[in-house]
Amino acid sequence: MGSSLGENLRLTIFGQSHSPAIGMTMEGFPPGFRVDQDALGRFLARRAPGNHAWATPRKEADEPEFLSGLVGDVTCGAPMTAVIRNTNTRSQDYDGLREVPRPGHADYPAAVKYHGYQDVAGGGHFSGRLTAPLCVAGGICLQYLEARGITVRAHIASIGGIQDEGDPFRSVAEKPFPTLSDERGAEMQALIAQARQEEDSLGGIIECVAVGLPAGLGDPMFGGMENRLAQAIFGIPAVKGVEFGDGFSAAETRGSENNDAYRMNHGTLRTETNHAGGILGGITTGMPLRLRAAVKPTPSIGKSQRSVNLRTGEETTLRVAGRHDPCIVPRAVPVVEAAVAFVLVDAMLGRKRETEDA
Amino acid sequence: MGSSLGENLRLTIFGQSHSPAIGMTMEGFPPGFRVDQDALGRFLARRAPGNHAWATPRKEADEPEFLSGLVGDVTCGAPMTAVIRNTNTRSQDYDGLREVPRPGHADYPAAVKYHGYQDVAGGGHFSGRLTAPLCVAGGICLQYLEARGITVRAHIASIGGIQDEGDPFRSVAEKPFPTLSDERGAEMQALIAQARQEEDSLGGIIECVAVGLPAGLGDPMFGGMENRLAQAIFGIPAVKGVEFGDGFSAAETRGSENNDAYRMNHGTLRTETNHAGGILGGITTGMPLRLRAAVKPTPSIGKSQRSVNLRTGEETTLRVAGRHDPCIVPRAVPVVEAAVAFVLVDAMLGRKRETEDA
Amino acid sequence: MGSSLGENLRLTIFGQSHSPAIGMTMEGFPPGFRVDQDALGRFLARRAPGNHAWATPRKEADEPEFLSGLVGDVTCGAPMTAVIRNTNTRSQDYDGLREVPRPGHADYPAAVKYHGYQDVAGGGHFSGRLTAPLCVAGGICLQYLEARGITVRAHIASIGGIQDEGDPFRSVAEKPFPTLSDERGAEMQALIAQARQEEDSLGGIIECVAVGLPAGLGDPMFGGMENRLAQAIFGIPAVKGVEFGDGFSAAETRGSENNDAYRMNHGTLRTETNHAGGILGGITTGMPLRLRAAVKPTPSIGKSQRSVNLRTGEETTLRVAGRHDPCIVPRAVPVVEAAVAFVLVDAMLGRKRETEDA
Amino acid sequence: MGSSLGENLRLTIFGQSHSPAIGMTMEGFPPGFRVDQDALGRFLARRAPGNHAWATPRKEADEPEFLSGLVGDVTCGAPMTAVIRNTNTRSQDYDGLREVPRPGHADYPAAVKYHGYQDVAGGGHFSGRLTAPLCVAGGICLQYLEARGITVRAHIASIGGIQDEGDPFRSVAEKPFPTLSDERGAEMQALIAQARQEEDSLGGIIECVAVGLPAGLGDPMFGGMENRLAQAIFGIPAVKGVEFGDGFSAAETRGSENNDAYRMNHGTLRTETNHAGGILGGITTGMPLRLRAAVKPTPSIGKSQRSVNLRTGEETTLRVAGRHDPCIVPRAVPVVEAAVAFVLVDAMLGRKRETEDA
Repeated sequence: MGSSLGENLRLTIFGQSHSPAIGMTMEGFPPGFRVDQDALGRFLARRAPGNHAWATPRKEADEPEFLSGLVGDVTCGAPMTAVIRNTNTRSQDYDGLREVPRPGHADYPAAVKYHGYQDVAGGGHFSGRLTAPLCVAGGICLQYLEARGITVRAHIASIGGIQDEGDPFRSVAEKPFPTLSDERGAEMQALIAQARQEEDSLGGIIECVAVGLPAGLGDPMFGGMENRLAQAIFGIPAVKGVEFGDGFSAAETRGSENNDAYRMNHGTLRTETNHAGGILGGITTGMPLRLRAAVKPTPSIGKSQRSVNLRTGEETTLRVAGRHDPCIVPRAVPVVEAAVAFVLVDAMLGRKRETEDA
Repeated sequence: MGSSLGENLRLTIFGQSHSPAIGMTMEGFPPGFRVDQDALGRFLARRAPGNHAWATPRKEADEPEFLSGLVGDVTCGAPMTAVIRNTNTRSQDYDGLREVPRPGHADYPAAVKYHGYQDVAGGGHFSGRLTAPLCVAGGICLQYLEARGITVRAHIASIGGIQDEGDPFRSVAEKPFPTLSDERGAEMQALIAQARQEEDSLGGIIECVAVGLPAGLGDPMFGGMENRLAQAIFGIPAVKGVEFGDGFSAAETRGSENNDAYRMNHGTLRTETNHAGGILGGITTGMPLRLRAAVKPTPSIGKSQRSVNLRTGEETTLRVAGRHDPCIVPRAVPVVEAAVAFVLVDAMLGRKRETEDA
Repeated sequence: MGSSLGENLRLTIFGQSHSPAIGMTMEGFPPGFRVDQDALGRFLARRAPGNHAWATPRKEADEPEFLSGLVGDVTCGAPMTAVIRNTNTRSQDYDGLREVPRPGHADYPAAVKYHGYQDVAGGGHFSGRLTAPLCVAGGICLQYLEARGITVRAHIASIGGIQDEGDPFRSVAEKPFPTLSDERGAEMQALIAQARQEEDSLGGIIECVAVGLPAGLGDPMFGGMENRLAQAIFGIPAVKGVEFGDGFSAAETRGSENNDAYRMNHGTLRTETNHAGGILGGITTGMPLRLRAAVKPTPSIGKSQRSVNLRTGEETTLRVAGRHDPCIVPRAVPVVEAAVAFVLVDAMLGRKRETEDA
Repeated sequence: MGSSLGENLRLTIFGQSHSPAIGMTMEGFPPGFRVDQDALGRFLARRAPGNHAWATPRKEADEPEFLSGLVGDVTCGAPMTAVIRNTNTRSQDYDGLREVPRPGHADYPAAVKYHGYQDVAGGGHFSGRLTAPLCVAGGICLQYLEARGITVRAHIASIGGIQDEGDPFRSVAEKPFPTLSDERGAEMQALIAQARQEEDSLGGIIECVAVGLPAGLGDPMFGGMENRLAQAIFGIPAVKGVEFGDGFSAAETRGSENNDAYRMNHGTLRTETNHAGGILGGITTGMPLRLRAAVKPTPSIGKSQRSVNLRTGEETTLRVAGRHDPCIVPRAVPVVEAAVAFVLVDAMLGRKRETEDA
């Protein structure tokens, strides 16, 4: 049962790409917090397809309706549920998918798992559209964190091999294309336009940092921040790798290079470097949390691909119709922020449990 | 509460490096399975330090005593608990650690989290020694998988930048140094010897494959195989990155390259390539599962490092005494197999729940 | 985080009495099951207030809208979410409750727990109205059980001391007042009418049986059927006691009386008596499951009661306005069936996990 | 997987009656708490059989060995594991039980559930002996509660129909036979002696109160204190009913009688009566928590009983050999205290999570 996440804050996501609605329930959020609906709307707009060349032409407003958990806009302690209606569905685009699975999609394993009863339209529950309710939950968590001086910021680290440049602590939230460097962003957009032209797609890497965290968040072993963040981030469709701090690069260094020496900075313990990405033994150190997520190229491409008809067993070819993003990386940037923010609030609530008794 | 893992099979790990014992409880394992204690002992020996140049001189037999869950050597359905006594402890080596945290270790965040009451000796509950009970659980799971024709095999993919070469489906279980290529293994060992000489340490990458899996394992979103495997593998100390299939490399490719086309092979659906590492939408495809884990260099090094006395706030230097591995990657290879095997059995038991009703 | 229930089948209930909607998400339900929406509607109507003298004049249709989890009316394996709009809300009835808690209600402890931010209107998340989504989930589970030859039947065992009489395995689903004996039912209704007249309320006991269960459902210790059923049934507002089989009466007997002797009946193991209520060691025996739940009198009464103004600390009196049931026992009968059905399906799915390997 | 309990404090119990050891792991207990091992020993002695006429002649010291979670006697935040060796086992007493299930025991449903692989000796994992590790966990929780001014006290409310009398807030911990009234206790003991003489057994009722609790503990719906306490207490073998406050009696009263009116008492909100047993809407009110648990007569009796040979299908008779308690109620009194204490600490830790943000 994978559609839930979190230990102290519990998120459940429901809906299919073409069901009447998608949505989320979040239980355990502290009462008395005023949700800034305008800010939430702006955050959700960053994930929405917009009118961008790199995004699907399926346009939906992604306006959440809160069914419960709020009195006015203030959390009341009861489970918070928000739904987003699916209005712009063209299920006929997917008619053939029950028989011929799209390469790189969940179509085939889902057919096995659900014995053929899965909702094929739009990818069903496996659709990237399900990241919208994750952003509703994460968007509220981001507000909660900001009110406590904690900032979570993601940007595109690379697309198709083109690297972004700049200070990862700067916000790209206002930019239509979320890179630190506008120049590199323009190069990436040109590459995406070319891939779209060729009915192909591109992947990329997203980097995310969180600043202002206290030390002591997370649990040992399987409940560490890395474990929890990875569990959340691999829930974003197309993510195939997650690393923290120097990650895979750290594997090529020596202990004397990779260890972050401690020093005092105005009465606060800090490390001189941050190869660890702010996490040691699964627990936050108080230094900036830093992670990267690898996103594979969108599997839906117009190019002809070989597949098999599951009913007849015959090999066939397939061209994916429907409306797809040639590169989902730009739209996945706020989703990574949302996933990280959710896990951080979950860990902060767990940390409260550990306050010393009077 | 991070010392537990699994949904259908529930593992709890307990113990500290220098407490009377370490151990594990595993609940939900099917009754009627005969544990091959000799094979389990051989598996545990692969993780044990042995007399190898790359391992800690702390020698312990790691012989588990089963307290429950077995009748004779056959599982009876009750929770299985095994303990390993800690016999070779030299806690005085760690006397200073409460005040001066070792860079790269959990010492400092643990002190914050536990308000100074954490067990500092040997790293306490954060010690790599806690991977021994994980190997007890995983070793039994490996036997369960083997009886069902499923093979899990890990090897060192690289150490200090030196890459292993060869067929990852070959077993290295009999080798003292678990590389596919003995030549590359010799080069790695030389590099480790040199690092030890310099009182330094090395990291590396471990690759793991699992063959023979059915399609349909795993759950959507946060319960996918990638999410669960990552949650387990980040529980192994020093792991800083996990990727599946082509992982971070996939981020640089195009959809037409990265998608794995379907074909029929003697009546079975297969993919021509396996960039996905056997997982789509979090669910197994029936192709080999393939993942890589990045291990940072052992933080315990003899070289002088800068740290801070937590009590006085004064900056100081530290040389880590105690007995440590200059490179834990070789010993972590069976631990990765154990973690993967545990997650696979957990998913297979969950999959049983999904059998169609008669 | 108490609004979720179940291990193999996971139910989350959301909504407040006067929020835009109430609803439920159920994950883990087997795919390919056709929900009979008409039968579900009839089941929900049993809980709905109707035009009965014993029920609240707040009339709502309780028509669930399924947002996800179905393709047509067939389950697809994705989380099933259904919502029921709250249309007939008169929040002004509750204006004073934030300051003066109603005796016998959750008002005061909720105010403490949520630091004054709880939704007071209609009892918020603590309202009996939240049993409607439980009935949506349970109603579907009842259909699943019936398709497998398992029948769950509850009836009023007593109200205000008047005992029902008759065969508890007979269905009362078609009756407006769910007693086995119409005569005793008429007496109870007269008693309720009198209590209503006196602006007072009544409690009662509900008995529930389940027939056709296989032996072997449930887990040891804290996962037994009694533990799980009790956890579910105490989730129904106003339940203050739960007993299985002979329950509290068994405490007055001797082992030789209370033990149920085994015998063979046409090749099947049965017990001669069923004092155990079909559960031994927490596991079903294959005999009818039998339980009773004690429901306290509705706390909302028109009679004057003493309370305290939480803001001023002054003692005051209170007459509960709003629209309330003088006795919720009749409407709680299908809710007990729903709770039992949910727990049974949860246990049956868990039991599938335990099938022997081929 | 039923051998675990708790959300913020996680208890796992392992062991079989005749396995090498039984024990428990408790994770999430606050660090820095000094366990009073002597007091714990005295508490465990209350459950141990002793030399009493009403208890089994199987004598075991029940001395727990702590394997982890402590530094000295102070909790360090890591999972706490304690084991108790099984020394006095006479498994041959149980040789016949695999074929002929004892009426009233878990033998038959366990054989079905575990496909015949269950540990039959001494009842295996279903044995009452497994309440010893529950008492280790609960005994520590009792100390934690006492240090915070919270007292948990249970006594025998009745045995075989004889009622105890007196003030339930008085401690009976020092008494060999835990009744409030020594006279009534003597009558009960006489009744037990007579049942033993007749190779029969008796049940009874245990009452438990907890004083000093803050208001606000517990969660809505399925996470209420009643739900959690019932889940824990039904984990004690032979418990068949649980009620809170007036419980089943409340079902016969009217709202005007059963509602507890509020008043101010030296600046604190109190209720004039406590029919609710200190719980409203699942949440504590700050008034004494009060519950009763019904214990069925010990199923193991020397008297001849009818059963069936599971292998041959033939009906047969059975006299339970082995060493059994003619009435387990006296020994179950501290077990109820332990279960209640565990649930209370779990809820108190959860409550910490809800502290208002600065």
